[in-house]
Amino acid sequence: MLWSKMFIPTLREDPASVEAASHRLLVRAGYIRQLTAGVYSLLPLAQRVRLKVMNIIRQEMESIGAQEFLLPALQPMELWEESGRKETVAEIMFQLTDRKGSSLALGLTHEEVFTSIARATLNSYRQLPQIWYQMQTKFRDEARPRGGLLRTREFTMKDSYSFDLDESGLDQSFQRHAQAYDRIFRRCGLNFLPVQADSGAMGGSASTEYMVLTDCGEDSLVTCSNCQYAANIERAQALASVAHVDEETINLETFDTPGVRTIRDLEKFAGATATNQIKTLIYEHDGRLSLVLLRGDQELNEAKLIGALKCNQLRPADESRIFETMGAHAGSLGACGVRAGDGQKVSTILADERLRGRRNMVTGANKDDVHVRGVCLERDINVDRFLDLHKVHAGEACIECGGSLKLVTGLEIGHIFKLGTRYSESMNARVLQADGTRSPLLMGSYGIGVERLMAAVVEQNHDAKGMRWPMPLAPFQVIIVLLNSADEKQRGVAQRLYSELTGAGVDTLLDDRDERAGVKFNDSELIGVPLRITVGKKAASGIVELFDRFSLQNIDLEVEEALVRVKTRCQEQ
Amino acid sequence: MLWSKMFIPTLREDPASVEAASHRLLVRAGYIRQLTAGVYSLLPLAQRVRLKVMNIIRQEMESIGAQEFLLPALQPMELWEESGRKETVAEIMFQLTDRKGSSLALGLTHEEVFTSIARATLNSYRQLPQIWYQMQTKFRDEARPRGGLLRTREFTMKDSYSFDLDESGLDQSFQRHAQAYDRIFRRCGLNFLPVQADSGAMGGSASTEYMVLTDCGEDSLVTCSNCQYAANIERAQALASVAHVDEETINLETFDTPGVRTIRDLEKFAGATATNQIKTLIYEHDGRLSLVLLRGDQELNEAKLIGALKCNQLRPADESRIFETMGAHAGSLGACGVRAGDGQKVSTILADERLRGRRNMVTGANKDDVHVRGVCLERDINVDRFLDLHKVHAGEACIECGGSLKLVTGLEIGHIFKLGTRYSESMNARVLQADGTRSPLLMGSYGIGVERLMAAVVEQNHDAKGMRWPMPLAPFQVIIVLLNSADEKQRGVAQRLYSELTGAGVDTLLDDRDERAGVKFNDSELIGVPLRITVGKKAASGIVELFDRFSLQNIDLEVEEALVRVKTRCQEQ
Repeated sequence: MLWSKMFIPTLREDPASVEAASHRLLVRAGYIRQLTAGVYSLLPLAQRVRLKVMNIIRQEMESIGAQEFLLPALQPMELWEESGRKETVAEIMFQLTDRKGSSLALGLTHEEVFTSIARATLNSYRQLPQIWYQMQTKFRDEARPRGGLLRTREFTMKDSYSFDLDESGLDQSFQRHAQAYDRIFRRCGLNFLPVQADSGAMGGSASTEYMVLTDCGEDSLVTCSNCQYAANIERAQALASVAHVDEETINLETFDTPGVRTIRDLEKFAGATATNQIKTLIYEHDGRLSLVLLRGDQELNEAKLIGALKCNQLRPADESRIFETMGAHAGSLGACGVRAGDGQKVSTILADERLRGRRNMVTGANKDDVHVRGVCLERDINVDRFLDLHKVHAGEACIECGGSLKLVTGLEIGHIFKLGTRYSESMNARVLQADGTRSPLLMGSYGIGVERLMAAVVEQNHDAKGMRWPMPLAPFQVIIVLLNSADEKQRGVAQRLYSELTGAGVDTLLDDRDERAGVKFNDSELIGVPLRITVGKKAASGIVELFDRFSLQNIDLEVEEALVRVKTRCQEQ
Repeated sequence: MLWSKMFIPTLREDPASVEAASHRLLVRAGYIRQLTAGVYSLLPLAQRVRLKVMNIIRQEMESIGAQEFLLPALQPMELWEESGRKETVAEIMFQLTDRKGSSLALGLTHEEVFTSIARATLNSYRQLPQIWYQMQTKFRDEARPRGGLLRTREFTMKDSYSFDLDESGLDQSFQRHAQAYDRIFRRCGLNFLPVQADSGAMGGSASTEYMVLTDCGEDSLVTCSNCQYAANIERAQALASVAHVDEETINLETFDTPGVRTIRDLEKFAGATATNQIKTLIYEHDGRLSLVLLRGDQELNEAKLIGALKCNQLRPADESRIFETMGAHAGSLGACGVRAGDGQKVSTILADERLRGRRNMVTGANKDDVHVRGVCLERDINVDRFLDLHKVHAGEACIECGGSLKLVTGLEIGHIFKLGTRYSESMNARVLQADGTRSPLLMGSYGIGVERLMAAVVEQNHDAKGMRWPMPLAPFQVIIVLLNSADEKQRGVAQRLYSELTGAGVDTLLDDRDERAGVKFNDSELIGVPLRITVGKKAASGIVELFDRFSLQNIDLEVEEALVRVKTRCQEQ
């Protein structure tokens, strides 16, 4: 391809008010243009990269026996009612009505449609396992699209779905995907980390996120400084310290605490350290109320609470509801003597694992400006369940090895889920087992955001001058910079290099423009071509310059030798 | 690929209430499933064909220097207001509102978005010509989706757009597309016909449709039985007969015609043959009224009238409006003495070319139950423009050679348009000319419906037993039917054929199922694999059967010879 014929609208200046490096560089180097908030046009350079990514994904999906489909973006709303997910995803689902008045959704994911195909066509265990995938456009009405291709409202997703007879089959399909994902991300040149994750709106029993560590990510991750443990903060656990069960119990005693509203206030006022306080929170979920108890020094992890309550929606109860229920305002709440259950104002009392067995704690007395001390969890509070509800913080002990945990920021580029029977139950997708009974399919679902992956690669592969595409994704593997196209000798050498390389299947760009050398060098580095051959004055004596965009090394070589080196590097991938 | 592992949900029976052969066969053979009206899921066999079609299109587009983009489906409504097309396409445009209240359209075509990119990035004649294309999902809220993949509400389109400095550049881009389209359709094994077409809602000056002649099409075409002339009925012209200018004129004379409403009534009542009557129609367009005059034996071609009036919307005026304007009801209308123009009730009077110079005609007198005879067009009617407005019928004379015209039915599989400055003017996309002036880009737009093309191929390539895919599109080029998988010899031969063929890059399906031979043969013919190798008892003596799905020939061959023949046939394409 000749640069003069190729559409590469580079900009001289960085685009305004852009933060992420990938966003800045993709716009400036002429890869993408915004059409409207969170919606981008991919220009030819970006589409070349996208096709290479999709090709790698296709190869790896086929290597695990996955079969390619193409499902519609337009989906009848009834499917989402059937699966019971319509409300959960309503906020980010684009909805529309057709000329006949039917309600349609633009697919934000395809569990429902694939399950509807499976239930109509898969009848027997003999047809299992199946892995079905597509690379298709997803639509999500994100509240805050951002960062160019990092979070958009329309994007290409590789989504796959596995259908198995039983848990061990699902384990295998899940493992195969984990292996395929490892290979895909490695071939794309990414430095990534699989982490344990929360399943969120997808439902299901287990999931792994593939994260790229970068400050432009939106996920907080917990990693161990000693072992391989890594988890999304929503899911991360830490070792619970053992309660002081040998401590002598004291009696309950209320005491006035005028103006005390916070854990910190109470520390100062009554000398009760945060670790000796019980924090009492009240949450509304699907119309009901629950009390949530944490140690005073801990924060609630809402994702864990959603998982525990198996609810669709969750929010802190508002002030008036709190007062009406507890008889006091936030700041003086406590769970001593509260009864929960059917017919009660509060449906359940949950406490973090770290409160189990604790004695002589301080908490609110459900009377404004009054607290109570001497609280023993087992004796004074009707806890329905102790479970892990707290948000891990840096320095806690790793649940696997006891090592010290760290917090880092990550960008999710892939996510694999064990869905189990979440969709096959609600949508009635069953198959005949070998013993003649019918049972729901065990499903998994697995996604990679294609354009986000491209942005992640740029985040990890750039310098001050521009992008540095890993060889397997580069829109062009090599660029030939012809310095003086009026010089017959130079033109001849450039032309020969170009024909030999394109003939050998190397994606080659020939910069034949009438521009200064500096402009050409800068542009080639900005768009991130991994190798550059400069054809200048030395071409007269058969010498060209080979520049490596990664090592930044520049060496003079004879034309023949340059050809050999470039071909070798391009075929290595 | 092994059939036992592949997802091919064939049906034993034809699907109910399905008319088009492609619809019936694509469903029955397990290629597609409907999700909702006019919205289909492509299953693995269909996706394999789709990727092959897209690959052919990509190669041919690149051979004319086109560059691949990927633009969004979500488009801000403002763009459609800018181009002035919002009303014209409102009926088939899916519209939605995002969480912030912005109006979005789902792209039904991409002139607006590509023009918005062009105006922001193309500044100078030095950057021209450009040909930009994509293969992307289009959404159209069709009133009557039908025939499986023949007319859907969501489909993949290859759409390209050319940007040139002047008319001769546009001619070249248009010609290049015409050549690429010829090659694409030929490689896809289609028997097709390019026809002159109306530009419709796209605007612009000239267009060619690529038609497949099939009864399941929706377009009426006019072809000449003598020369190459072919045109869509909307656009087709015929030779106008010469008027009898030597006829002596008679005076205007009104006469009572009680109960006469139609051309036929008047023929019977007054003995005036239809060819001697003037039919007077009154149309409302963009708020104005026009009179349209035709010979009594002719029908109006509304597409030609829209083109003549350059209007967005057109409809026959309603009864009350007619009476209010003309003083009579339909059946007694005429144009004698009517004045048209600014300040008048009627804005213009148009007459079909065939009325030019006609004398002594009969028409309505604008008084109910009264007509007038002796009407001479030049003398008695203020015709603003004579032009071609009539709908061609079979038997008329070809405009190019005078031969007899025929009417046939066609299915549109591609359409190329010269848009001229239709979009660059309204959206202000201008470039600097060599002489320093700025002028609007000359544009073309060019489309192929990918899934419809697949359906058209099936319409032209099937028999009572199923589909017959042309080699370049076949999901599998050859199927090996292993009759008895318990027979070691047979299994060995099948395995050897399978490895050799897949190793040679042939798309091979091995039917390893435990099914009766009849089922396997029927299935292989239903899904339309072009070549079949049957491995049965004769495999013991090294003989297999080679069956050709097109010629229906079945021959015994030695394994070695079968391999050679199959490889040759598969590499020919």
